[in-house]
Amino acid sequence: MSLEFNHVTLPQRVLFGFGRASGNLAAEVRRFDAQRVMVIAGERELDLAREVAAGIEVAVWHSDVVMHVPVETAEAARDVAQRNEVDLLVCVGGGSTTGLAKAVALTTGIPIVAVPTTYAGSEATNVWGLTENGRKTTGTDNRVLPASVIYDSELTLSLPVELSVASGLNGLAHCVDSLWAPEADPVNAAMAAEGIRALNEGLPVIVEDPQSVHGRDLALYGAYLSAVAFTSAGSGMHHKICHILGGTFNLPHAQTHATVLPYVLAFNAPNAPEAEARMAAAFGAPTALEGLQGLRERLDAPTALADYGFTADDLPTAVALALEAIPDSNPRAVDEGSLTALLTAALSGDNPASVQDN
Amino acid sequence: MSLEFNHVTLPQRVLFGFGRASGNLAAEVRRFDAQRVMVIAGERELDLAREVAAGIEVAVWHSDVVMHVPVETAEAARDVAQRNEVDLLVCVGGGSTTGLAKAVALTTGIPIVAVPTTYAGSEATNVWGLTENGRKTTGTDNRVLPASVIYDSELTLSLPVELSVASGLNGLAHCVDSLWAPEADPVNAAMAAEGIRALNEGLPVIVEDPQSVHGRDLALYGAYLSAVAFTSAGSGMHHKICHILGGTFNLPHAQTHATVLPYVLAFNAPNAPEAEARMAAAFGAPTALEGLQGLRERLDAPTALADYGFTADDLPTAVALALEAIPDSNPRAVDEGSLTALLTAALSGDNPASVQDN
Repeated sequence: MSLEFNHVTLPQRVLFGFGRASGNLAAEVRRFDAQRVMVIAGERELDLAREVAAGIEVAVWHSDVVMHVPVETAEAARDVAQRNEVDLLVCVGGGSTTGLAKAVALTTGIPIVAVPTTYAGSEATNVWGLTENGRKTTGTDNRVLPASVIYDSELTLSLPVELSVASGLNGLAHCVDSLWAPEADPVNAAMAAEGIRALNEGLPVIVEDPQSVHGRDLALYGAYLSAVAFTSAGSGMHHKICHILGGTFNLPHAQTHATVLPYVLAFNAPNAPEAEARMAAAFGAPTALEGLQGLRERLDAPTALADYGFTADDLPTAVALALEAIPDSNPRAVDEGSLTALLTAALSGDNPASVQDN
Repeated sequence: MSLEFNHVTLPQRVLFGFGRASGNLAAEVRRFDAQRVMVIAGERELDLAREVAAGIEVAVWHSDVVMHVPVETAEAARDVAQRNEVDLLVCVGGGSTTGLAKAVALTTGIPIVAVPTTYAGSEATNVWGLTENGRKTTGTDNRVLPASVIYDSELTLSLPVELSVASGLNGLAHCVDSLWAPEADPVNAAMAAEGIRALNEGLPVIVEDPQSVHGRDLALYGAYLSAVAFTSAGSGMHHKICHILGGTFNLPHAQTHATVLPYVLAFNAPNAPEAEARMAAAFGAPTALEGLQGLRERLDAPTALADYGFTADDLPTAVALALEAIPDSNPRAVDEGSLTALLTAALSGDNPASVQDN
């Protein structure tokens, strides 16, 4: 079989270093020759942001950050940027903060330097999202891709362990799913495997010692790679299922991802031997599933959707919606029976290996 | 130890597919909305180029391609481009052809779509080179980076096996060296490891069956990754030594690389355990050196510099020049004694493991 793929590599400078955010930001502001910097950081991120921005001149601070970027919030931030003749956006924070900077860049074209403080990964993608009347619109536009990303795991030391693990496993799900998503290609796969390697090594270290620079570095690095791979490959079976469980049944995002991932992996792996081998190698385990389950045990990850309010009555609706959403490119065909078996197992936390031959 | 690196990802579209060059090129010309296409292809590449360009309108053909891009050749091509109001450069060929397109882009800013027919890798870098009065000048400029690369391994079927192997091993040397070059970072390392995996699998297939699509695909894909990793990481110990052997002693490029690589690998590996482990995994071998030597045996690769005119009398000069050139960042410090031992072993084709503890 011949190798066939289209891969678009997005341009980005990544400056990675513990305790280096402030120095790296000052260097980037000089490199851009920026005269009017707007720093975007939510209220809870302001202290961190002030430290990061200690070495630069800030024209305007903006802290009106709201989850899912409501259109009004975006408009307000755009006004501030324009009134202040801003020529560089610096966002310090998690996904919502980065998202607001992207909303400003989308209409103004002002470049972004992103300084992430979580594992959300938005900083490494050209995807934007806006919410109007409770409805979220997303799109891709290279103008919203941060020109530079400054990763400093010192800024993540205050991320609670539980949130770090949940967010890290979400990154891991991005890596795994990108191996069989519609735009999967070997370049994405190499990045995803590197991300799995880093997260598999880093997350358990954080559980043992939340202040470990090594663990924090690896998790942040892995989260970056997971975003790079996922944004190029697109959503696969896992994310389609989780999107339904979250959107229709209100299950919590991170726990849903952590619970569902081994079932999708077990389901697809036999039909995706190359992806399976890559994952197994990245986990350093005999099989991908053993690697993932070993990691989940060390992280004490959630195991059953029943613990989060999902019930057997929800199964038919979830299965019907998932059947429509799962891409045709999935390595193993899905049908009502196999999806019902998969979600039934995830509901009660059965051994994922049980779905392998359904 | 904390993780610290700066990594710049260059933007590029890669369209990869056997027999797809013509269709992909037509799609790219439409995407650029190009009205005046200049196709650059050397005399020997013209037949291939005509097939590739069968689906597009060509404003001007240019086949005055000369190795190492003499300034006069570049000027002539720039004149042609400007006289013909060219808005897209399409180069079909090896490194010299791509190099000429880059020379035109450097001063005109006209975008390039590159269609490589060898494993030279120039199409994936922002490096340009020009020769004036026998002296080569190189530089980096993002304007010369091809916006799109169309890889079609059908175009490489006519590459002779010996040249394929030599060129493929040169790509492999790029991968290996980029693991300890001055700008080495884990992102480069992941790409380099993927390149090693592809070349290690593909090159022996080409030797067994030069018409194998699978082998040709993997070699071309590996060559692409080797260029991506190497252009980001820079030249390490291996390339510095080979540059001297080629430049000062006129040893042949490809054979020199193929011969020297295992000695540098053996020398550095004990001090670069992470790189060593990555390479071993990519080779699917217990150690990186065993993996490389296994591949070299299957390819019947050259083993001794003596076979190419290098002599014991040349050793002191080569060692002195190499001592100056090898980057301080090399994982193992070099001195006169250890470098003399390394080059003495490479001269006669001694077991590379012998330099491990010198």
